[in-house]
This record gives sequence, structure tokens and C-alpha cells, in this order.
Amino acid sequence: MPSSEIRITNPDWVHEVVDFHRPYPDDDARVRVAITLARENVSRNTGGPFGAAVFEADSGRLVGVGTNAVIRLNNSNAHAEIVALMMAEANLGSFTLRADGVPRHELFSSCEPCAMCLGATLWSGVTRLVFAATRDDATRLNFDEGPVFPESYEYLERRGITIERSQLRAEANEVFDLYSKRGGPIYNR
Amino acid sequence: MPSSEIRITNPDWVHEVVDFHRPYPDDDARVRVAITLARENVSRNTGGPFGAAVFEADSGRLVGVGTNAVIRLNNSNAHAEIVALMMAEANLGSFTLRADGVPRHELFSSCEPCAMCLGATLWSGVTRLVFAATRDDATRLNFDEGPVFPESYEYLERRGITIERSQLRAEANEVFDLYSKRGGPIYNR
Repeated sequence: MPSSEIRITNPDWVHEVVDFHRPYPDDDARVRVAITLARENVSRNTGGPFGAAVFEADSGRLVGVGTNAVIRLNNSNAHAEIVALMMAEANLGSFTLRADGVPRHELFSSCEPCAMCLGATLWSGVTRLVFAATRDDATRLNFDEGPVFPESYEYLERRGITIERSQLRAEANEVFDLYSKRGGPIYNR
Repeated sequence: MPSSEIRITNPDWVHEVVDFHRPYPDDDARVRVAITLARENVSRNTGGPFGAAVFEADSGRLVGVGTNAVIRLNNSNAHAEIVALMMAEANLGSFTLRADGVPRHELFSSCEPCAMCLGATLWSGVTRLVFAATRDDATRLNFDEGPVFPESYEYLERRGITIERSQLRAEANEVFDLYSKRGGPIYNR
């Protein structure tokens, strides 16, 4: 009998390192949540060096987080951004974060999203994407980012998504260095 | 307390319309599984007009199926292809369908994958992608397919993925017509 239910979870330690009860006032605070999740994911051996978080744009309320869980969950789709977006939508009880009467939402990622996650960003309804490390940084680590082109970003921008690059990039790269030093696996290379 | 677990399921009726115990010998039989899932998803009001299935290339063994579940599961990532790939990986107990000693796998979809699902196709490790309806067909229905370009396909092909287009395209378009006639919702437009 084939599998009939997939479960997607974050590691238990997530609630030790992020606080869902306080607002995160600015971009630095928000991208630092994503980078912290990436760093802890490496330190605690629960996955790849990637973290992501979804916030309400105006209030800074944290509505969903994700850590890379490809190997832990045996699921090639379980990138940090996908997990964070799923969690945020579950919390809202909605398949979109851009409904009438719903505050604007933003996705923060410790690294530039791959092709899959950039598509997911579009479908999620977030109005802004902020990331730290870049495609080049991930590629240096031998992670593939897939078919993302300048036109891909233009496509998102035409649909009202603002994109901010290289926020706290150096901090995110320290996580990559840590992963590299620990000999972390490069899946799907 | 925010959500801590996401569950991804197929509708219960899936086991009435696909048979996991017989092989599917050729492309027509395999793409028809994807189209049947799409059609039943519409007829039974469980989601959008999209279905997908993963097969072992040589044996024709069915290893995972998916139906569009964006609205049913409140999850913008729950496209048919993503669900089918997750189910296939769960059945194999592996985050990749392309490991040493593992038979080659193929993804069949009732429609050309969106940007997210094309990325997911790459990460899944399938060696072949076959789809029925095209991007133009989906766009005619007002579904957005996201940033997919000719270079996107070239990227996948360079990584050893063969792509076959417009297999039983007319049958898949009949499902779109049915969805349209029933006034099915166009989410994320």
C-alpha cells in the first residue's frame, strides 16, 4: 500500500531560537531570524544551511518559519522557503497570503531561492522577498539553484513582488562556511 | 501557538481510479493516469484540473500520484506534481529518485509544470518529464504558469532530464473545458 500522507515539520528546537510572541521591527531583525534558523539547522545536524521566515510586513509579526529538511524528511521539496510558506498559510488557514483584508506578508530567506522556491514565492502571495546569501554563494558550496534568470525576477516584479538582495549576506555566508567545515552533505548535486 | 505540522494527502477516491498493483506499459497509459486524476479532481470537486503521477521508467510501476490540492489543503504549494513527487519519495524512503541502484523514474503530468513544479522536477531526480496540456492551454483558462522560459527546459535537459510535450493534449484540454463549464475557481490569478 503506497504512502497516503506526507508530514512536514520543523525540528523541535525551532521554538527555542525564535519567538512567535514578539514583533520583528525591521529587515535586519527579520533576515536574522532566517539566518539563525539556517545556523541552528547546521549546528544541530537537522539539515542543510538554509532557513526562512514569513512576517506580516507592517506589524513584524512572525507567521511561519522553515528550515531545510530535504534529508531529514526524505523530501526534495522541503526547502526552507517552501516549509515557511506552508506553515504561514496553515497559520492563516488560507492558500494565499494576499487576500482582501489580510495584511501584506514578506518572505525572508537566508539564501537566494532556487527555481522551485522562487515559483512558490509567487504563488504564496507575499509582496516582498528579502534574501541574504546569493546564488553565487550557494553555488560556491556546490548547491545547484536551478533555472533562475534575470527574467524570472522581472516576472515576479511585474506581479507586485519587491525583491531585496544581499541583506546580511556575510552572516549567511558564515553559516555556509560552518556547513562546509562540518562536511555537510550536498544533496541533488 | 503556530502550526507545527503540515499534512499533505490525496483525496480518498484516488484509490478507486488508479491501480498501484498493475504496470502501466507505455506513455499513453501513464499520461492517462495523470489526466484521469485531473478529471476526477474536477468531477468530485476536490481541486483544480491537474493531476500527476510518477512511474518507474522500465517496469511501469506506479510509485506516487498527486492531484491539485491548493484550495482543499490551503496550501499554494500543493500542485499535482509536487504532491506526486512527495508521495513517490515517501514510498521510496528517499529524497531523490535517482540514487545508485534505484530504477529510473519519470514524472507524468496532465499539464505543463509551472515554474515551481519545474524546479521540483529537477530536484526530484526523475530522468524524464512528460506532460499533456501546454502552458498556453493553462493560460487560456487564466492559470498563471510563472517564470518558465526555453532556457529553463535547456537547464533541465543539460542535467539529463528528457522532456516530452503535448502527449494526449486534447484529452487534458477536455478536463480544462469541464472545469471551465463548472465555473471552477482560478486561484492565484
